[in-house]
Amino acid sequence: MPPLTTLPPRAVIREVGLRDGLQSIQTILPTAQKIAWIDQAHAAGLREIEVGSFVPARLLPQLADTAELLAHAKTLPGLCASVLVPNLRGAEAALAGDADLMLLPLSASHAHSLANLRKTPDEVVAELGRIRAARDASGRKTLIEGGVGTAFGCTLQGEVKPAEVLRLMQALLDAGADRVSLADTVGYADPASVSRLFEQALRLAGERFWCGHFHDTRGLALANVYASLQLGVNRFDASLAGIGGCPHAPGASGNAASEDLAFLLEAGGVATGIDLPQLLALRGQVTGWLAGEATHGSLHRAGLPKTFHPAGALPR
Amino acid sequence: MPPLTTLPPRAVIREVGLRDGLQSIQTILPTAQKIAWIDQAHAAGLREIEVGSFVPARLLPQLADTAELLAHAKTLPGLCASVLVPNLRGAEAALAGDADLMLLPLSASHAHSLANLRKTPDEVVAELGRIRAARDASGRKTLIEGGVGTAFGCTLQGEVKPAEVLRLMQALLDAGADRVSLADTVGYADPASVSRLFEQALRLAGERFWCGHFHDTRGLALANVYASLQLGVNRFDASLAGIGGCPHAPGASGNAASEDLAFLLEAGGVATGIDLPQLLALRGQVTGWLAGEATHGSLHRAGLPKTFHPAGALPR
Repeated sequence: MPPLTTLPPRAVIREVGLRDGLQSIQTILPTAQKIAWIDQAHAAGLREIEVGSFVPARLLPQLADTAELLAHAKTLPGLCASVLVPNLRGAEAALAGDADLMLLPLSASHAHSLANLRKTPDEVVAELGRIRAARDASGRKTLIEGGVGTAFGCTLQGEVKPAEVLRLMQALLDAGADRVSLADTVGYADPASVSRLFEQALRLAGERFWCGHFHDTRGLALANVYASLQLGVNRFDASLAGIGGCPHAPGASGNAASEDLAFLLEAGGVATGIDLPQLLALRGQVTGWLAGEATHGSLHRAGLPKTFHPAGALPR
Repeated sequence: MPPLTTLPPRAVIREVGLRDGLQSIQTILPTAQKIAWIDQAHAAGLREIEVGSFVPARLLPQLADTAELLAHAKTLPGLCASVLVPNLRGAEAALAGDADLMLLPLSASHAHSLANLRKTPDEVVAELGRIRAARDASGRKTLIEGGVGTAFGCTLQGEVKPAEVLRLMQALLDAGADRVSLADTVGYADPASVSRLFEQALRLAGERFWCGHFHDTRGLALANVYASLQLGVNRFDASLAGIGGCPHAPGASGNAASEDLAFLLEAGGVATGIDLPQLLALRGQVTGWLAGEATHGSLHRAGLPKTFHPAGALPR
């Protein structure tokens, strides 16, 4: 176990506001605004963006322009353009668009999996195997990430056993996932439970462990990020202005807010490559487009501390 | 250094909403409502409450009824009733009211100290010496806490050197403080800086280190609590609904929200003695009284997880 204050020198924030954020709110952003969001996020230094989800447009009309956004994101230098795919059909669209990464979500809660995906978790594992075969046959370099959600419990089923989470993570790796990640989909995690489960997940997946995804439903997203950061996790999903929320809790907070997370990292000496004033300016623009929707986060109200130095500018 | 997941078995939340919270907002709560707040906080299991501040009523009319609140709080069984005192005159009032603890704030930022207290930090240390003499002469058992504020920087002066924070903490102990604590008055701290400074403070003050006080100005209060909890700190200031804010940043978050902090602790197996549903009910009542004021926190929107067990109810 490293000492408490040994944090990774660098970490990546994957912006998921365009997918996890927008899919949970009413407003449908025009494609031109989404493209401006992607461009300005890239200009602010973000290098991984989940641009959308290849689900049928009748289910999520907010994300109907995913193919167009992916094509645009692919033109930006150094950007890892990722998409969510719910199944093989979505993966075929991601491969057609030459996504850099596609994320297949699996819910470790059987009840949540059946309700949301109409498949058992093990059927999702089997689907990942088919996606791997399709990717290998396509000649594309698109990485496959298997994301284990409801990893800390679920609003339908309640408890989700860590052993089941880890079994499914191993099954995803065995089925051909290049990367695996853990998501606290409903905001049930606390830093102590994060430390315990992430330590086991890292031991199991090693270098193939990819990302932590924390919802701020109960205010603990950043504390949970910190707990996993201490274990060496160095990639986190976040949404600008914390948009997202939970369909079962009106007004509830969404993902960790990208700008607050970037502040936590940079202030702690963990370089992200992000220009925080530029990211805050983009936040102002996006929340303007989303007038009337619940937005979250704290840094934007107070601004950066007078003493703030970006991590890259500190002697290391 | 203990392993990451070894947290203290118990921790105390000191409710400071009646002092730090109310002094920063416009609404003046009637004494009867403050008494109801104290009674219901006690009924919900809180055992330390800062009921007010012995400052001249013309400076803080919101807190003019501190003596009356202290007298009431002293009637509640097992409650540690504390007050803030800015100087010897305030301490004399605290001794007259037989407070269980009086907190003398010191600002490690010289600029902030001169602007807010019209004294240098070392003049505040000298005042603590006079307060100690008065306490000893009074025969009261009132504990004296010296709180080092702006410990992570300051909006006026900018940087505050950790060596100066620690020098002043040692000076407070030498001058007769029974307890010392650290406050991130303006929300400049991040978990990494908290780990570093609190580790040194604990080494310096040992058992006389008392409390961590974190403002959520930039969203990191609970992550900062977690970082100090990992070092064994087991007492934290917090305000119901996170009220407080910062006079220099309109709408900015105040203290850590008591209810979200209690959730972090209890979910992580750290017993607080607090009944969270009762505390959430009180939050609803208090925010009703403060209609129009900015309130904060997340747990109240989503409610407790289906899987939640109070720490005391878990096998340990």
